Amino acid sequence: MNKAIYNFGPGPAMLYPEVLRAVREELLDFRGYGASVMEMSHRGAEFMEVAKTAEADLRELMRIPADYKVLFLQGGATGQCAAAPMNLLRGKTSADYVNTGYWSQRAIAEASKYCEVNIAASSEHKNFSYAPAQSEWRLKKDAAYVHYVPNETIGGVEFQWVPDTGSVPLVADMSSNILSREIDVSRFGVIYAGAQKNIGPAGVTVVIVREDLTGDALKRTPAIFDYALQAKNDSMFNTPPTFAVYCAGLTFKCLKKLGGVKEVEKHNIAKAKLLYDFLDSSAFYRTPVEKRDRSRMNVPFFLRDERLNDEFLEHANERGLLHLKGHRVLGGMRASIYNAMPGEGVAALVDFMREFETRHG
Amino acid sequence: MNKAIYNFGPGPAMLYPEVLRAVREELLDFRGYGASVMEMSHRGAEFMEVAKTAEADLRELMRIPADYKVLFLQGGATGQCAAAPMNLLRGKTSADYVNTGYWSQRAIAEASKYCEVNIAASSEHKNFSYAPAQSEWRLKKDAAYVHYVPNETIGGVEFQWVPDTGSVPLVADMSSNILSREIDVSRFGVIYAGAQKNIGPAGVTVVIVREDLTGDALKRTPAIFDYALQAKNDSMFNTPPTFAVYCAGLTFKCLKKLGGVKEVEKHNIAKAKLLYDFLDSSAFYRTPVEKRDRSRMNVPFFLRDERLNDEFLEHANERGLLHLKGHRVLGGMRASIYNAMPGEGVAALVDFMREFETRHG
Repeated sequence: MNKAIYNFGPGPAMLYPEVLRAVREELLDFRGYGASVMEMSHRGAEFMEVAKTAEADLRELMRIPADYKVLFLQGGATGQCAAAPMNLLRGKTSADYVNTGYWSQRAIAEASKYCEVNIAASSEHKNFSYAPAQSEWRLKKDAAYVHYVPNETIGGVEFQWVPDTGSVPLVADMSSNILSREIDVSRFGVIYAGAQKNIGPAGVTVVIVREDLTGDALKRTPAIFDYALQAKNDSMFNTPPTFAVYCAGLTFKCLKKLGGVKEVEKHNIAKAKLLYDFLDSSAFYRTPVEKRDRSRMNVPFFLRDERLNDEFLEHANERGLLHLKGHRVLGGMRASIYNAMPGEGVAALVDFMREFETRHG
Repeated sequence: MNKAIYNFGPGPAMLYPEVLRAVREELLDFRGYGASVMEMSHRGAEFMEVAKTAEADLRELMRIPADYKVLFLQGGATGQCAAAPMNLLRGKTSADYVNTGYWSQRAIAEASKYCEVNIAASSEHKNFSYAPAQSEWRLKKDAAYVHYVPNETIGGVEFQWVPDTGSVPLVADMSSNILSREIDVSRFGVIYAGAQKNIGPAGVTVVIVREDLTGDALKRTPAIFDYALQAKNDSMFNTPPTFAVYCAGLTFKCLKKLGGVKEVEKHNIAKAKLLYDFLDSSAFYRTPVEKRDRSRMNVPFFLRDERLNDEFLEHANERGLLHLKGHRVLGGMRASIYNAMPGEGVAALVDFMREFETRHG
């Protein structure tokens, strides 16, 4: 490689260098097997071991209780947005959804195909700039479940707390902050996450589901989305995305070596602090999110003078600071700083932003 | 690698060595980009080019007419077994299915969730040992579509002809023989295929659909399975399995270099002939499929004395001839000899089988 580049895009995101090095090292001959992991039968002893180890390591990292199933599926979080109502309605006709931005809305659109959706809380009237406090939530007693997005990748809003939904199962699209902070899995009914931010390459979806919530899917549930069927078959009712599962497993090993989620979280707090402190100190930039709800993973910000946007992006690119352009629905800039983004990447971004400000401020 | 090994498993299957070498070569730095293809945004210019090229090469290889959409999705053929009725019923209430084995039955089970399934023909009464002739098919005029499996991976039955269904769209699960032989795509309404046999690593599903069949999906269709929505978004309504698409693209390039599907088909005919000729010449082995319907991709066979099965498999393994055990529903042995299985692999298998026969015959 000619120079360090840092990918601040929202995903597929950077992977740990040691994950990529291991993939490369083993690519033609998986641990003496004589062929690539991509060529291995998913039902052979070698791959079964890969999948089993990945699950065991994820269980250890997230301290997943024994009464939860861990599935490695396909279709991304968007697929799971449909799978959630299909599996969880269980005779009920409505579900509660908290609307904190783009990915909440996608989940709501999918759920609306299968049930009545009650918007229990929304930050839409303030342009999705905050996380509604629990006191604002209007939950329905007969809801099948409560769905929220703990971290909105586009809006950069992150819940710093886990909602209390009593006996109604809490369901979370945790795609963009899973494994970035310690959470108590036992507070959730279902957690799902696309891999391409904190887990591995795009193409595998992690689903963590409390066992008692499986087994009563709608008749019209595609088999690949049936929690109980996939759990019974160790996520192999159909051929799993073997290579993506293998890469996820390498990331889990890497996180364990780094000291687990507790240590990674400390690192994430420090990275986010560096960037937000700089933004707060500058009159040249601004960030739109309520301070207490700021995401550690996705940091949206604006140049006060938006006519400079193109120049900012062009110069950032020249410095190897890539994909800082914000999502079209919000505009401006966004720095996604997931687990594998090193502190040096964030420091390089802040240095560049300071220089750009000096030149133009 | 210590020795050549040949994977005769039904999939994930062998890949072309040059595909794996290219993946390894580019793994840490994709063509000067400075990062891995796994870390690239699916919406960045670099990956868009990868996806566009993969589609263009597949179109060229299969001579796909311009009025067909090509999608790269997730969820495998099993996902598409549900997607087919969801997208193709279009106001109708039934579909015709031809039942030639395990994968036909999976498709039927999925479709039965969404519509009335008419079994237009079946070879079940003869233990799925042949492909019912068109004259046996009882098609319904008001069927939304006709579904069949051109190659049954487990039973080893392959249609050597394309059915004529008149104006009713023909739908095919082509997972295990796509790109292995020339076909006239214009005869089909929809072709779908999981990648892990002839295309690339598990995790991407190719869907080729005639454009006029899109746009009228059931309301309860998960967004990721909506042909029209995915077509409109270049298969990127949700994050695509970028790495698997990239690998598929490398396979397509490789097939083009080998002379295209026409040349690959010749090679496949020769490989299959070598194995079937040997089976026909031996009293020690037998193969259960009608001669005219024998699959070029999956060759099931039995030892006349099944007490020797374990020893056969053990010795085959020692020779690097892997995964020859037949599927549990059929028992016996099965050699899957997809595109990337070299002629030497089949020759090595025949040599071994001859020796084993000599020793035990």
